[in-house]
Amino acid sequence: MHVGRSYRVVEFAMWSRRSVVYMVLLSLLAIALFLLPPIQGFALPWQVVVMLGTTVSLVAGFKNSQVLGRSAEGLQAFAQIAATSRMLAGFCRGFCEPQVAKILIHRHIAWLTALRFGLRRPMPWESMSRRANIEYRRRYHILEDTTNLNAELARLAPEAAKVSDGTRPEIDLLSRQAEAFNALFRAGSLPPQIYVELTKLLRDCHDQQARCDRIKNNPYPRQYAIVSAMLVWCFCTFLPFGVVALFSEMGIGIWLAVPFSTLIGWMYMSLDQVGESTSNPFEGNANDVPISQICRDLEIELRTLLGESEIPKPLPAINGIAT
Amino acid sequence: MHVGRSYRVVEFAMWSRRSVVYMVLLSLLAIALFLLPPIQGFALPWQVVVMLGTTVSLVAGFKNSQVLGRSAEGLQAFAQIAATSRMLAGFCRGFCEPQVAKILIHRHIAWLTALRFGLRRPMPWESMSRRANIEYRRRYHILEDTTNLNAELARLAPEAAKVSDGTRPEIDLLSRQAEAFNALFRAGSLPPQIYVELTKLLRDCHDQQARCDRIKNNPYPRQYAIVSAMLVWCFCTFLPFGVVALFSEMGIGIWLAVPFSTLIGWMYMSLDQVGESTSNPFEGNANDVPISQICRDLEIELRTLLGESEIPKPLPAINGIAT
Amino acid sequence: MHVGRSYRVVEFAMWSRRSVVYMVLLSLLAIALFLLPPIQGFALPWQVVVMLGTTVSLVAGFKNSQVLGRSAEGLQAFAQIAATSRMLAGFCRGFCEPQVAKILIHRHIAWLTALRFGLRRPMPWESMSRRANIEYRRRYHILEDTTNLNAELARLAPEAAKVSDGTRPEIDLLSRQAEAFNALFRAGSLPPQIYVELTKLLRDCHDQQARCDRIKNNPYPRQYAIVSAMLVWCFCTFLPFGVVALFSEMGIGIWLAVPFSTLIGWMYMSLDQVGESTSNPFEGNANDVPISQICRDLEIELRTLLGESEIPKPLPAINGIAT
Amino acid sequence: MHVGRSYRVVEFAMWSRRSVVYMVLLSLLAIALFLLPPIQGFALPWQVVVMLGTTVSLVAGFKNSQVLGRSAEGLQAFAQIAATSRMLAGFCRGFCEPQVAKILIHRHIAWLTALRFGLRRPMPWESMSRRANIEYRRRYHILEDTTNLNAELARLAPEAAKVSDGTRPEIDLLSRQAEAFNALFRAGSLPPQIYVELTKLLRDCHDQQARCDRIKNNPYPRQYAIVSAMLVWCFCTFLPFGVVALFSEMGIGIWLAVPFSTLIGWMYMSLDQVGESTSNPFEGNANDVPISQICRDLEIELRTLLGESEIPKPLPAINGIAT
Amino acid sequence: MHVGRSYRVVEFAMWSRRSVVYMVLLSLLAIALFLLPPIQGFALPWQVVVMLGTTVSLVAGFKNSQVLGRSAEGLQAFAQIAATSRMLAGFCRGFCEPQVAKILIHRHIAWLTALRFGLRRPMPWESMSRRANIEYRRRYHILEDTTNLNAELARLAPEAAKVSDGTRPEIDLLSRQAEAFNALFRAGSLPPQIYVELTKLLRDCHDQQARCDRIKNNPYPRQYAIVSAMLVWCFCTFLPFGVVALFSEMGIGIWLAVPFSTLIGWMYMSLDQVGESTSNPFEGNANDVPISQICRDLEIELRTLLGESEIPKPLPAINGIAT
Repeated sequence: MHVGRSYRVVEFAMWSRRSVVYMVLLSLLAIALFLLPPIQGFALPWQVVVMLGTTVSLVAGFKNSQVLGRSAEGLQAFAQIAATSRMLAGFCRGFCEPQVAKILIHRHIAWLTALRFGLRRPMPWESMSRRANIEYRRRYHILEDTTNLNAELARLAPEAAKVSDGTRPEIDLLSRQAEAFNALFRAGSLPPQIYVELTKLLRDCHDQQARCDRIKNNPYPRQYAIVSAMLVWCFCTFLPFGVVALFSEMGIGIWLAVPFSTLIGWMYMSLDQVGESTSNPFEGNANDVPISQICRDLEIELRTLLGESEIPKPLPAINGIAT
Repeated sequence: MHVGRSYRVVEFAMWSRRSVVYMVLLSLLAIALFLLPPIQGFALPWQVVVMLGTTVSLVAGFKNSQVLGRSAEGLQAFAQIAATSRMLAGFCRGFCEPQVAKILIHRHIAWLTALRFGLRRPMPWESMSRRANIEYRRRYHILEDTTNLNAELARLAPEAAKVSDGTRPEIDLLSRQAEAFNALFRAGSLPPQIYVELTKLLRDCHDQQARCDRIKNNPYPRQYAIVSAMLVWCFCTFLPFGVVALFSEMGIGIWLAVPFSTLIGWMYMSLDQVGESTSNPFEGNANDVPISQICRDLEIELRTLLGESEIPKPLPAINGIAT
Repeated sequence: MHVGRSYRVVEFAMWSRRSVVYMVLLSLLAIALFLLPPIQGFALPWQVVVMLGTTVSLVAGFKNSQVLGRSAEGLQAFAQIAATSRMLAGFCRGFCEPQVAKILIHRHIAWLTALRFGLRRPMPWESMSRRANIEYRRRYHILEDTTNLNAELARLAPEAAKVSDGTRPEIDLLSRQAEAFNALFRAGSLPPQIYVELTKLLRDCHDQQARCDRIKNNPYPRQYAIVSAMLVWCFCTFLPFGVVALFSEMGIGIWLAVPFSTLIGWMYMSLDQVGESTSNPFEGNANDVPISQICRDLEIELRTLLGESEIPKPLPAINGIAT
Repeated sequence: MHVGRSYRVVEFAMWSRRSVVYMVLLSLLAIALFLLPPIQGFALPWQVVVMLGTTVSLVAGFKNSQVLGRSAEGLQAFAQIAATSRMLAGFCRGFCEPQVAKILIHRHIAWLTALRFGLRRPMPWESMSRRANIEYRRRYHILEDTTNLNAELARLAPEAAKVSDGTRPEIDLLSRQAEAFNALFRAGSLPPQIYVELTKLLRDCHDQQARCDRIKNNPYPRQYAIVSAMLVWCFCTFLPFGVVALFSEMGIGIWLAVPFSTLIGWMYMSLDQVGESTSNPFEGNANDVPISQICRDLEIELRTLLGESEIPKPLPAINGIAT
Repeated sequence: MHVGRSYRVVEFAMWSRRSVVYMVLLSLLAIALFLLPPIQGFALPWQVVVMLGTTVSLVAGFKNSQVLGRSAEGLQAFAQIAATSRMLAGFCRGFCEPQVAKILIHRHIAWLTALRFGLRRPMPWESMSRRANIEYRRRYHILEDTTNLNAELARLAPEAAKVSDGTRPEIDLLSRQAEAFNALFRAGSLPPQIYVELTKLLRDCHDQQARCDRIKNNPYPRQYAIVSAMLVWCFCTFLPFGVVALFSEMGIGIWLAVPFSTLIGWMYMSLDQVGESTSNPFEGNANDVPISQICRDLEIELRTLLGESEIPKPLPAINGIAT
């Protein structure tokens, strides 16, 4: 997530420069076709371009609103996880033996860790592998790229070895947490009220995890993505051929069609590209939910409360990008 | 649900080729009417076409947003079911005799099975029987088409024979599950707190089932569907007759009206067709909620926790389509 | 609720034929004014018509989305009621004497009955009394039109006579149900946990009833309805006078203005009329929440579980309309 | 809230006649400027007017949807309050001495009374003091205008004298209700389960009260209101100067610009004025949540259950306006 | 939050005068380019400007609706906090020793204090440091600018010294509150039911705090902000060059292009600027959630109930701005 003042226009233009290049070349082609003999005067009727432009705006608005909803839901899930984690740690510290509390809280942190590694795994539809994003990614750093789930878990949970073999370590850890609570309850070491509260918190962990999984496992519907991409492409491709006619009456001014089409086409393409890059809020894009940072902050908070001494450092935003 | 990178344009065009053919024929007709004697120069005023275009965009946007809401709600219901199932299995394993726990969890899986078969039954308004979808369906595989509820239930629940006779086996199974919990509670084999938690989870199963039923049993309002379809049809039919006049000034260029009208008409028709194919999220379309896969994954997860050995395989996405 | 494949265009056109007639007459008037001497050449500027068209689309989109929200909320309330009813019946059967359970469940069915009769009562703003809807209503059947609350209640609840005298029998029945639960609890015949669960379910009945009442008692805001109706009327009335000028350049083609204006005007009017007919989801329109059917299905389900023999039949959809 | 069939057009036109007068005068000015010497032929370019028109539609749509959300939330809060009140009365009657129950229920009604008086107090941004609304208000009657909180409370709660002195009597009453429940619980006169239920209901009263306060105390954001008002004013002021040019080609027909501009300008102004009058759902406008009526109906219902004899009458809608 | 009748147009114009100046200069430049020799007659095609205008309206509508959602969510969180605080104080006063209750309630007020100081800290993306806002801020007063967290906490919580050293005093205070409740419960001084209720309320404090943090820590997505800003800038920059051609036919009237472009450009820029200034609801803007006032009102209310004598004064709105 970009947490600086704003993207700079240059930075943004660099990121989306492929659209710019495409539009410049197309505009030159449009002028060439218009000016050069074989089909001199060729241009597309501007009225059709306008109609497409309105539709593209509406469709892009629709997409952006849906996609932002996914992103906002990811943030909500992690906000909820933060609240839940604090409550859970409070109960553990308040009603369990310090040693037991430490194990329980460490397992909770292990769950957070496994969850965030799970959410970082690449999916076929994610845009992280697009060239613009690979380039931009050099400007910041994703924790999960340079660390290793097994190693992180080993520090936290005794059952790490078993857990990290499975396909879904985060589910396994929650299941083990439940077993631990159940055992404490059966042993009578937890007042029933506290057990019930812990159960509610665990339920919340399951719910938020299912929510994150839902966003992670189900792309923004591909059928909408393709219609929307085709419309944008169509509009931007037709644009210079329509613009060229509008400027042609200005004599030499026809060359103004190049910057003009480019600027406009670039903005509409950016509208779509921005939507595309927001649609998968956990992949590690510059616009994504900063799950590494949120989990690290929670880890620091919980371990400080446990009075531990070896506490990891907060993750700073690099070049304004929190991850 | 399509879980690949994206639909390919060719694939998409094949799926919606009926619109393309319709637009090509209509465009040729428009040119013929424009060029040939009896009513030479016939064209529709473009301004009207533009106004219709704006309305079609708005109406399609409205429809797509409503229809995507149905689909998203289907996904939410199943995400919630996943979280509930995990909690339920945890309590059963933690507080019941292994044999009892196994019966309870198997009955829960039986419920999932009955639910997914129920959600796959065809409804009059579903679009699975449209030719484009029948063709496309050959590319992937729907589990419920080749298996049988009775057989699947027989493997899971002792009461299978009775249950699968009824009209709503999924409701019957939940009702039997409730009876089993009640009996355990009355027999004092469940701590009251646990009974209360199981009750909440059962309530959640009822709620999510009622939610899925609501989406399954009530189509996207037919009165909106028809207004929207008529508007799109009207716009696309008028389009070539309006375009032809715009291109007529270009001499030979009038033939450009054919690809042009076709491309634009095809996109607007696709906008509507895509909405139509998203509106029933459980019928088994390429864009639907992958309920077979979600249930299968849950079954694997729950049975692994029970330590069973004969566990079904995960359902892979076929040609990028998870079902 | 229409639960067939789709409305047929002819059927829809019949329903909205008053708009068609209005548009045809208006178009003929427009041509007459344009062609005949006194104010020959009279036409309205098309640009204004277009601007109104865009506004009408936006306003109609706004209205339809609000109105569909009302309808969707009605469906949600009844889906929730179904889940609640099943839970409630389960607890009654599991923890009460069979005789008591039967009384409680019958009273619950009596509540459903009183609720649906209450929701069917006519309100001043409902569109059931419009001629188009009266005509269309002959094609299907509304249970509450031919049956009688008193008679239905008499079959179900011992207190029927007292209850059906009051102004709000559904509230009275819920209140008596609460008293019955309280009495059982005070008498120690219900475990506290079960009493608490029954209380939650009763709360849910109260909530869903208040939600349905809210939709029933408060129309789609009349101030929005009138602005929207005026805009549509204005646009459709101006339309032929604008279209006539566009077509006038085509010589004999001017007569094309008639079908053209009619088709377009009809679609915009339908957009509004469809919204109007969706806005009151309980009055018994062809597009409304099928509350009779939902309640009947629940009654069948609950009485079958009670092992009763005289069970009413399901209500089939008539001509594709479930009520 | 208008609960009749519909506003009549004449009634609506009277209410918004100031816009009509403004538009007529402006149109005459536009014609004068166009026809009379000094700057003969003066007109604004219509294309700019159209662009503003589209923007105004979008901005008005945005405003109306936000404002309707406020109104709908007000209705939801009171629907929830109705459900809660019924539950609360049920518990009081079921588990307290009749005398105590009566005091508790009367205090609840006192709270409803204090709440509705609080919500009727005027706020600087409310539109009740606009001339159009003052005039229209003569057609109906707001209970709180002619009654007095102190007097009404005196009939209901023993602590009335103390309470009505404070700044927020409704908060004070809820606080006293909580104390009463706590005292009953500490005295062992309430089973713990019932106490917990009463606590939940009290929590709900607090929540709904906070929700109403939020709507009452925070206007529709003034910064949006002013941008929206400026856009509408700008558009409507430019409109006749644009329309005059369109009609000027019709010779004598130029005078048609007057009714035409007036009609259109009036509708756009109404769109905004209607939004403005809906934005504060508790002030007592013709479109507001009928809180007096809802509270009165609840009072009648609860006191009838208590078997009281002196019960107030329901509040009828006057001229179709429920308040 | 502006709680007056409305912003005055002059006030609003002063605030956004930079846009006005920009538009005036640009319009003069446009006229100069159009009239003066080198590229006499230079103008941009108006059709492109219109298309951009529609897109800008849609994009601004999208942004404003998202941004208003953030603001509304902030208000909801604080409404919820108010309800929770009242319930919490009720339980403390009802079931704890007066001395203990006082400590607990004071700690709760301390939490509110720490929360509001936390929400006032500046973030890089907030618009408080823009010149227009700095100027406007002179008209009102933000409590947190002139007071000090340490001093305020010292008056309230015994642990103030320790707490205010930490990075997140609000989290620390909630954690201490939980410990206090736990200790009371373990000591048997709280009935279990009350402990459970306090736990729920604490959970709610955590949830609302996490919600506020989410809004505070995550800006309105910067990628959307920049696309939207670029579009508005582009449109407003092109506008005068398009308008100039429309007015050029009016001879001397060309100078009308200056006020005209300025007025329109200013409104579109305001639309964006207003969105920008609403997007961070806690920074202390004139349009933000009045958290100081809400917390002060709660403090007064809770301390009055405790019977304290030294109670702070309510915060009046200054120049109509509540903060």
